[in-house]
Amino acid sequence: MNGPPDALEAQIIRSWNINAKPWARAVQAASILSRTLATDRAIVDAVRSVSPGRVFDIGCGEGWLARALCALGVEVTGVDAVPELVAEAVRGGGGRYQVADYLAIAERRLECGPFDAAVCNFSLLGKESVNGLLSAIPHYLDAAGHLIVQTLHPVAACGEHAYRDGWRAGTWAGFGAEFSDPAPWYFRTLASWVSMLRQCGFEILECREPTAPDAIAPASVVFICKELTR
Amino acid sequence: MNGPPDALEAQIIRSWNINAKPWARAVQAASILSRTLATDRAIVDAVRSVSPGRVFDIGCGEGWLARALCALGVEVTGVDAVPELVAEAVRGGGGRYQVADYLAIAERRLECGPFDAAVCNFSLLGKESVNGLLSAIPHYLDAAGHLIVQTLHPVAACGEHAYRDGWRAGTWAGFGAEFSDPAPWYFRTLASWVSMLRQCGFEILECREPTAPDAIAPASVVFICKELTR
Repeated sequence: MNGPPDALEAQIIRSWNINAKPWARAVQAASILSRTLATDRAIVDAVRSVSPGRVFDIGCGEGWLARALCALGVEVTGVDAVPELVAEAVRGGGGRYQVADYLAIAERRLECGPFDAAVCNFSLLGKESVNGLLSAIPHYLDAAGHLIVQTLHPVAACGEHAYRDGWRAGTWAGFGAEFSDPAPWYFRTLASWVSMLRQCGFEILECREPTAPDAIAPASVVFICKELTR
Repeated sequence: MNGPPDALEAQIIRSWNINAKPWARAVQAASILSRTLATDRAIVDAVRSVSPGRVFDIGCGEGWLARALCALGVEVTGVDAVPELVAEAVRGGGGRYQVADYLAIAERRLECGPFDAAVCNFSLLGKESVNGLLSAIPHYLDAAGHLIVQTLHPVAACGEHAYRDGWRAGTWAGFGAEFSDPAPWYFRTLASWVSMLRQCGFEILECREPTAPDAIAPASVVFICKELTR
């Protein structure tokens, strides 16, 4: 997967804009098996484990997680770069939503917070954009706030590629014909995730590996982190 | 893999006593490919990264790591439960060695230390024995001391088994005919390693995934940890 980094980051946003409608439908119809079998519950449980009152849902998509947390009494602000997904989230309710890209968050231009916790549920897809975003998160958190990240499990999702950081071509395999133009994504090894989280100011308190019933490999990894003392 | 836990822990020690001679020969002849291609250097580099003056080498075997660290000016005390391996280590020099099992360390009966760092290089094979051992390590360390663990990579070494904690049958596949009676070992998921290290009083500073040149999967995982503030 080659290309100028900025172009790859831009492709991610473009792809999600193109696929916003079928994506929102797929999530709302609970038709993504790995989500319903393992990872949806895992992210809700992980957020609950730190008992936050106010949560910043970064890359909230069509808002299912914000709604699930809201039903548990949590106050949620969701942001996403894709206007159509945010419109869908607003329609569904459950939180306050706004359109914002990761650069706006990274540059501390968003007026919201402070939050007790930030959550990124399968929403950290790029390279520099992710570094910039995570480094800025402490700005939006109360002191000693939490960060919870769910992402593809680096080892289990490595596939036939060499196990090292790099851009990978996306795929909609297993999704319907209405999906197109899959986004590239930046693969990080476990070592790189741990190192990036620490460099961005977080200590890993716990790591979980949600696994679907009867599955051999974990479906994802969840990092539950706390801000390093400032 | 079934059996009373104590019997399985005892089998580990018995197996290493039986295989001490061929093991020492294999290490000294550098005939274990994963070690020479990736993991030997990885553990030496990891220990060096925390610049310790005095190191506690737990499960030192025939002493190659103690000798390697000694050659870098580090003072090493090595312990192992297998008398024949310790005898081999003493012959090779490079550190002070003693025969001790993990229970003796766990019960704080060893008179040595304090150390700047403890290292466990592929030497955490059991279940309760390992929990007991790691919990006691802070007792042998200076305040804010380091712990460095290298172990099989949980995801890469999971094989065809379900990805969950449990005893596994050992194998000497790839080793010579002079090896016999492989030891059982306790498989831990990544989540369990992270959780155990924290419960035993350590914060993970860094995680490394040594990978042999041209290999697809990492050969091991190395956790570089520091004592949580007491």
